[in-house]
Amino acid sequence: MPGLFLSLEGIDGSGKSTQGRLLAEALRALGHVVTLTREPGGSAGAEEIRRLVLEGDPDRWSAETEILLFTAARRDHLEKTIRPALSRGEVVICDRFADSTRIFQGVTRGDLRETVNRLHALMIGVEPDLTLLFDLDPEQGLSRATARRGHEMRFEDMGLEFQTRARAGFLDLARAHPDRFRIIDAAPDAETVARAVRAAVLDALT
Amino acid sequence: MPGLFLSLEGIDGSGKSTQGRLLAEALRALGHVVTLTREPGGSAGAEEIRRLVLEGDPDRWSAETEILLFTAARRDHLEKTIRPALSRGEVVICDRFADSTRIFQGVTRGDLRETVNRLHALMIGVEPDLTLLFDLDPEQGLSRATARRGHEMRFEDMGLEFQTRARAGFLDLARAHPDRFRIIDAAPDAETVARAVRAAVLDALT
Repeated sequence: MPGLFLSLEGIDGSGKSTQGRLLAEALRALGHVVTLTREPGGSAGAEEIRRLVLEGDPDRWSAETEILLFTAARRDHLEKTIRPALSRGEVVICDRFADSTRIFQGVTRGDLRETVNRLHALMIGVEPDLTLLFDLDPEQGLSRATARRGHEMRFEDMGLEFQTRARAGFLDLARAHPDRFRIIDAAPDAETVARAVRAAVLDALT
Repeated sequence: MPGLFLSLEGIDGSGKSTQGRLLAEALRALGHVVTLTREPGGSAGAEEIRRLVLEGDPDRWSAETEILLFTAARRDHLEKTIRPALSRGEVVICDRFADSTRIFQGVTRGDLRETVNRLHALMIGVEPDLTLLFDLDPEQGLSRATARRGHEMRFEDMGLEFQTRARAGFLDLARAHPDRFRIIDAAPDAETVARAVRAAVLDALT
């Protein structure tokens, strides 16, 4: 596929979404056409599946069912939003992609990583060209996430131990795939983080 | 698993659902505890997924996304309804199971059988002890199905050619798995078909 496929990953409160918006603005100012999207969701069908998983009683789905629902949403998002944008030559910035499933469903509720990986290979088969991992101390992330909590508290509710395991999982993934991942220190102020993000992405675009 | 897991398969209008009810009554009269269920659906979560797939514009999902959604529903149904009933020693009669996905998503919209089978092996891994295939001329099936159509016209709308390919697909599956399948001629009157069903099931129960 032409275009550039970027994903933003990290624990809740790591500043991914803010940084995604800042990056989209910066790239547009440089003349790039940018599609800024997010998971779960990012296409009409995937948003319907998102509501099914994130609203209502979160305990009504097993980890395996949740993995299947997120993969269904991802397949729709890929077909309807990501692939068309990439084939038009755009930069796609995706707030969470398959790595979030690998961590949130694959690591934190027992070890389902092998299942997640096999399902991804079978039904999705695409990885981002570049993944920015926003790395942050979970205590700082949790206090940021708590400050803006809405009705979708699916993951934030899981608490500090959950986010600590998720952070370790993301760092393991980044170490296993050094060509694809760039680790961004998410602790400083937004402008400092944004500079690091732009440097990593402009490097990949040239 | 103890208990007995029966699935009922066939094209639309083949009389599966009526025969499922008659079989449940007959088995209960013989003292069996019976769970009569259906797919897609059969558990609270799976019914939510069923509505997502079968209501609204059916063309909004690709065959692959639909396979993932049906597999998510099946996983929930298996965990919440089928496995608990089987471990209580009950007879589970399931109106459609994985064979319907093999045919309706795997055969009729291009050849996705290999994908369906690999996904089933990864996320479900269970086959019924016995599958009754209600075999019927699609013209007869379609006129029966049309007579009772409601707001879920997902498959009936696909028409005669679709049902003809589905019938051939079901017969191929039955020939490939002769130990699991019994082919029931669904053309005669309901009582004649019910007798053939009881004979096949009582044979499996003894």
